[in-house]
Amino acid sequence: MQKERGNKMIVVLKDNPDEKQLNNLVSWLKSMGLDIHFSKGQSATIMGLIGDTASVDIDLINSLDIVETVKRVQEPYKNVNRKFHPDDTVVEIAPGVKIGGGNFQVIAGPCSVESEEQVCEVASAVKEAGAGLYRGGAFKPRTSPYAFQGMRDEGIKLLLEAKKKSGLPIVTEVMDISHLPLFENVDVIQVGARNMQNFELLKELGHLKKPVLLKRGLSSTLKELLMSAEYIMAGGNENVILCERGIRTFETATRNTLDLASIPLLKTMTHLPVIVDPSHATGIAHLVKPMAMAATAAGADGLMIEVHNNPACALCDGAQSLTPADFTDVMEAVNLIRPVAYKG
Amino acid sequence: MQKERGNKMIVVLKDNPDEKQLNNLVSWLKSMGLDIHFSKGQSATIMGLIGDTASVDIDLINSLDIVETVKRVQEPYKNVNRKFHPDDTVVEIAPGVKIGGGNFQVIAGPCSVESEEQVCEVASAVKEAGAGLYRGGAFKPRTSPYAFQGMRDEGIKLLLEAKKKSGLPIVTEVMDISHLPLFENVDVIQVGARNMQNFELLKELGHLKKPVLLKRGLSSTLKELLMSAEYIMAGGNENVILCERGIRTFETATRNTLDLASIPLLKTMTHLPVIVDPSHATGIAHLVKPMAMAATAAGADGLMIEVHNNPACALCDGAQSLTPADFTDVMEAVNLIRPVAYKG
Amino acid sequence: MQKERGNKMIVVLKDNPDEKQLNNLVSWLKSMGLDIHFSKGQSATIMGLIGDTASVDIDLINSLDIVETVKRVQEPYKNVNRKFHPDDTVVEIAPGVKIGGGNFQVIAGPCSVESEEQVCEVASAVKEAGAGLYRGGAFKPRTSPYAFQGMRDEGIKLLLEAKKKSGLPIVTEVMDISHLPLFENVDVIQVGARNMQNFELLKELGHLKKPVLLKRGLSSTLKELLMSAEYIMAGGNENVILCERGIRTFETATRNTLDLASIPLLKTMTHLPVIVDPSHATGIAHLVKPMAMAATAAGADGLMIEVHNNPACALCDGAQSLTPADFTDVMEAVNLIRPVAYKG
Amino acid sequence: MQKERGNKMIVVLKDNPDEKQLNNLVSWLKSMGLDIHFSKGQSATIMGLIGDTASVDIDLINSLDIVETVKRVQEPYKNVNRKFHPDDTVVEIAPGVKIGGGNFQVIAGPCSVESEEQVCEVASAVKEAGAGLYRGGAFKPRTSPYAFQGMRDEGIKLLLEAKKKSGLPIVTEVMDISHLPLFENVDVIQVGARNMQNFELLKELGHLKKPVLLKRGLSSTLKELLMSAEYIMAGGNENVILCERGIRTFETATRNTLDLASIPLLKTMTHLPVIVDPSHATGIAHLVKPMAMAATAAGADGLMIEVHNNPACALCDGAQSLTPADFTDVMEAVNLIRPVAYKG
Repeated sequence: MQKERGNKMIVVLKDNPDEKQLNNLVSWLKSMGLDIHFSKGQSATIMGLIGDTASVDIDLINSLDIVETVKRVQEPYKNVNRKFHPDDTVVEIAPGVKIGGGNFQVIAGPCSVESEEQVCEVASAVKEAGAGLYRGGAFKPRTSPYAFQGMRDEGIKLLLEAKKKSGLPIVTEVMDISHLPLFENVDVIQVGARNMQNFELLKELGHLKKPVLLKRGLSSTLKELLMSAEYIMAGGNENVILCERGIRTFETATRNTLDLASIPLLKTMTHLPVIVDPSHATGIAHLVKPMAMAATAAGADGLMIEVHNNPACALCDGAQSLTPADFTDVMEAVNLIRPVAYKG
Repeated sequence: MQKERGNKMIVVLKDNPDEKQLNNLVSWLKSMGLDIHFSKGQSATIMGLIGDTASVDIDLINSLDIVETVKRVQEPYKNVNRKFHPDDTVVEIAPGVKIGGGNFQVIAGPCSVESEEQVCEVASAVKEAGAGLYRGGAFKPRTSPYAFQGMRDEGIKLLLEAKKKSGLPIVTEVMDISHLPLFENVDVIQVGARNMQNFELLKELGHLKKPVLLKRGLSSTLKELLMSAEYIMAGGNENVILCERGIRTFETATRNTLDLASIPLLKTMTHLPVIVDPSHATGIAHLVKPMAMAATAAGADGLMIEVHNNPACALCDGAQSLTPADFTDVMEAVNLIRPVAYKG
Repeated sequence: MQKERGNKMIVVLKDNPDEKQLNNLVSWLKSMGLDIHFSKGQSATIMGLIGDTASVDIDLINSLDIVETVKRVQEPYKNVNRKFHPDDTVVEIAPGVKIGGGNFQVIAGPCSVESEEQVCEVASAVKEAGAGLYRGGAFKPRTSPYAFQGMRDEGIKLLLEAKKKSGLPIVTEVMDISHLPLFENVDVIQVGARNMQNFELLKELGHLKKPVLLKRGLSSTLKELLMSAEYIMAGGNENVILCERGIRTFETATRNTLDLASIPLLKTMTHLPVIVDPSHATGIAHLVKPMAMAATAAGADGLMIEVHNNPACALCDGAQSLTPADFTDVMEAVNLIRPVAYKG
Repeated sequence: MQKERGNKMIVVLKDNPDEKQLNNLVSWLKSMGLDIHFSKGQSATIMGLIGDTASVDIDLINSLDIVETVKRVQEPYKNVNRKFHPDDTVVEIAPGVKIGGGNFQVIAGPCSVESEEQVCEVASAVKEAGAGLYRGGAFKPRTSPYAFQGMRDEGIKLLLEAKKKSGLPIVTEVMDISHLPLFENVDVIQVGARNMQNFELLKELGHLKKPVLLKRGLSSTLKELLMSAEYIMAGGNENVILCERGIRTFETATRNTLDLASIPLLKTMTHLPVIVDPSHATGIAHLVKPMAMAATAAGADGLMIEVHNNPACALCDGAQSLTPADFTDVMEAVNLIRPVAYKG
């Protein structure tokens, strides 16, 4: 019954619709296996469509001359939809390392993997400060072909080394299907904002069982983010973690505009865990702490924070990276917020 | 010395600039009373401009053929600039009712003033729940000329009645200079998002001493918000409160996108208090609580929240309004966040 | 019959709506004088609302628990709606100077009025090049309170002087209701982008008979632009000219993003003339010509172009202003496009 | 000499910079092979950096405490930069089928390849109307996993069949590196908006000699579009065609906002051909003609237009697709504009 309701569409027809066009429409809808119920009222004729409407192109119907308006009564996503799975999904990343359903995790680490020494030192530092997962970029999406593209397979090896030493599960970004074999021992595969609608990649990740951290695209709506998660879940992989990381707007004071209202809103739409990356969203180190606190207060299931080490070279302070000491400070603040955070 | 630094501009000239154009530029800059210091290096010629550069049109200079780039070393705003006024401004709205510098205030009340009964009942309810100021719209900016435009002067009278009964200072929006005489006993004059760049109105408010609550425009940058506050302060009125209320983006899941990173960012740029309006920003009642909590965690100096009463008619629940009971719940949550909020 | 159709709203109810809430909704809608027609189908219950629905708050109804979706079958604007006025409006600005309905006008002149000499020289130059109206800013909306705010009443006098000498009708911007008496002999009153939703000003302009040039706000949708025009027409003033001048987006390569698709789209929605301002939209002088040509090709009823003179001082070339010679070149190109432009 | 100029960066230091940090910065810049020239003026100290600055992270330098501002005097792109290649690139797609440098091409065809009959009929129709290339989607990026994903390899075969029959070179979209072998006989490989920053794919296309049609991302700046083209050219493939197809903004009246100012602007920045896709940009069939005309007037090197056939089924009119008769009408209008279009 729920399913039926979830698949309803309402088409309001214009007055006196052209009969031939109406017949065409009806035949086409029937050919897709839909049941059609007409309600001819004094003020309008309405068609209710029942069945598997998820594949119906709403824009196409809306563009027909005889159609006044069309509305999907329920959302086009199913597997990610909280209506059909009321309980929070809990993703178990490693034994005892869970996220969602009340389990909160902080993922921390450097933007790029640069050397074994760096990668292991930062891992040890963030573990001590309370991070539950370790992140580091091996494959780096860079606007310029002349910028450092990451250590790639070597970088993955160093991350696995850090995992072994620190005991922290690792999260790292994939940029192409062909690199997936390198990710066998990675704990969480990250899909970056630029690949949120790389549908071939999403389908491939759907065939794995490994947790996927899916970042919201720069100009993606929440509905599109959920549809991308639906690609992964439709393939059979239920371990999806969503990540809000700011959207592109006219405001240039911060790199992107962090959309924290997305946290409680996503959590009404979906059962999947939602985390926030304040480092990439703002691009400004001193905003990471207040935004980490705000995200926690708003009910996020976790955070993703950039941390570097580099006592020798002040230069390597990225604009958005925290030192291990800064990160410890953020963790303490976040831990004070957590008991009083929004529970939904 | 600070002043000089605050007024510096750097103009990088192109290689081999046309001499006549350069002379024109130099004469024009000197005619504006600026000192010019040339630094001819091997790789570039740079002009440093010292003096009152706030009135120099940076876009115009940037467009000249002989200019490679131009950069204002400091911001074009002075009075609102924290660099020149390191201490937080504390706006005293009424005896004992302060905002800024550690003083936190919640402003609550109905979107529109509708009747004496409504206005007084809500005032009493929000006072009991802990609101420090009372808001209500008498003049209503409405997209449609056919929508209710507010009770106008009658509405102001009812608000003053509610002030008398509840003891709460009142905040209400002005839409035109000609209405200002009606605001004599209003405690805080609100400038709505649509009027943030109504410069004639801002100038007029600069001549008053009354606190002004300046809302960020739908498509205004933080710098533009500060420049509008500068209009008011330049006229002599130092009692300006800034209000983040969401910006217009491509995302339509919420009415606007609440930009909470603006709170800590504004507080580094300016000494003025910053409050947040989660009701108008999201337009969705169930997002008001988590966003009020997040704004508080991020260091806001206060909140502005829509509250209605209307036991008799469930219809009057605006999409974004809370009942008094909901509001009490928000106040309790916010009060738990406050002690652990970001302090800067 | 047209009227009835134009005022229809469709409310789709959720399955098994709470009876008390439904009764509340029905009573409230009836209290607004609406007729309600129910269509109970197998798949949905729909309410059709007939009557003066323009004042119904669609967001409020949409937020009710018992409502699945609500849709205005027709637009909330009436007077500006092409459906109810199929013929193009022709605004007659001065004897023989018409815009709309096949009449094309170019409005040209300097951004700011600076001196009698400047104002008269440019007027003479643009007239010779083929401009039909003369523009110049006397009241200038400026982001900074320290920037030149225009010559104000003196500026209006100089424009009237230029009108007398050149014979060209003049267009200039109003910033506040209190300045309107100065505009008695101005031919077209311009409402700037920042005042597009200054509703008190719009209402006042509705009581005049003088043509109003209404610029689209930086972050205004086309529907909002039309609703602002509706404010003016609802007051009785039918002489409204719409102006596309770019919207604020993430792209900073141009000052704003010129939305030329708005021309043919507006012309299906409304009967009012639509012109384009490529100077302010792009902020870059060399883009004015191609964008003037493109706007003309897309079916604009006119253009608004910034032209300065200043043989003595190359500096005064604003980033977006053309010299009279450049403007003549643009006019020639536009005149070649006009015969082959889109006719709708 | 040009090269040196193209690689200059200017760093303005704050007053009295911390000496240790300055030394760190200088060492780091030298380690990247850059020459540094200091200009210590009365008002500022400026460092000019000469050498291969394309790989320098401008944001990182900008974030340093000792740096006031940093500015790249020239653009970070080289191969696509018109400064270093003043002449228009002419891409020869097939013998006699050229684009750029005065050669104008219209690419037309259906959104999706559906059947041999459809694909061949439309090819024949658009060829007769004057299209120079044929397009059709075999791999379809779809927001929903439940929507039709294209005929994939079968679709490519049908396109090659249509090519054989019509003689028109074909353009079709690639979605993943692994599909590239199927594109051997495709004439132009299209990179869709969602893949504009799929850097691994771009690198791979750089190793081919085949022309690439690169669509601007929904939220990509022109600079980012050029950097993505630079990825392809840096690999050795000089046959890149840029395509403006609308950006995502707050305006929902059209699917995206077509940014026609990008045409003349891109053509000052780069020597590559620039075409426009009015079908996807607007998503509304009746806007395709005026926007095709406007794009041509603004100096585009070509157009990409969706055309379907389907006499039997009015339903298949996509919201944005034209019939062959509509397309013929567009071609006639465009051909009238071309002789009077902007030449730059």
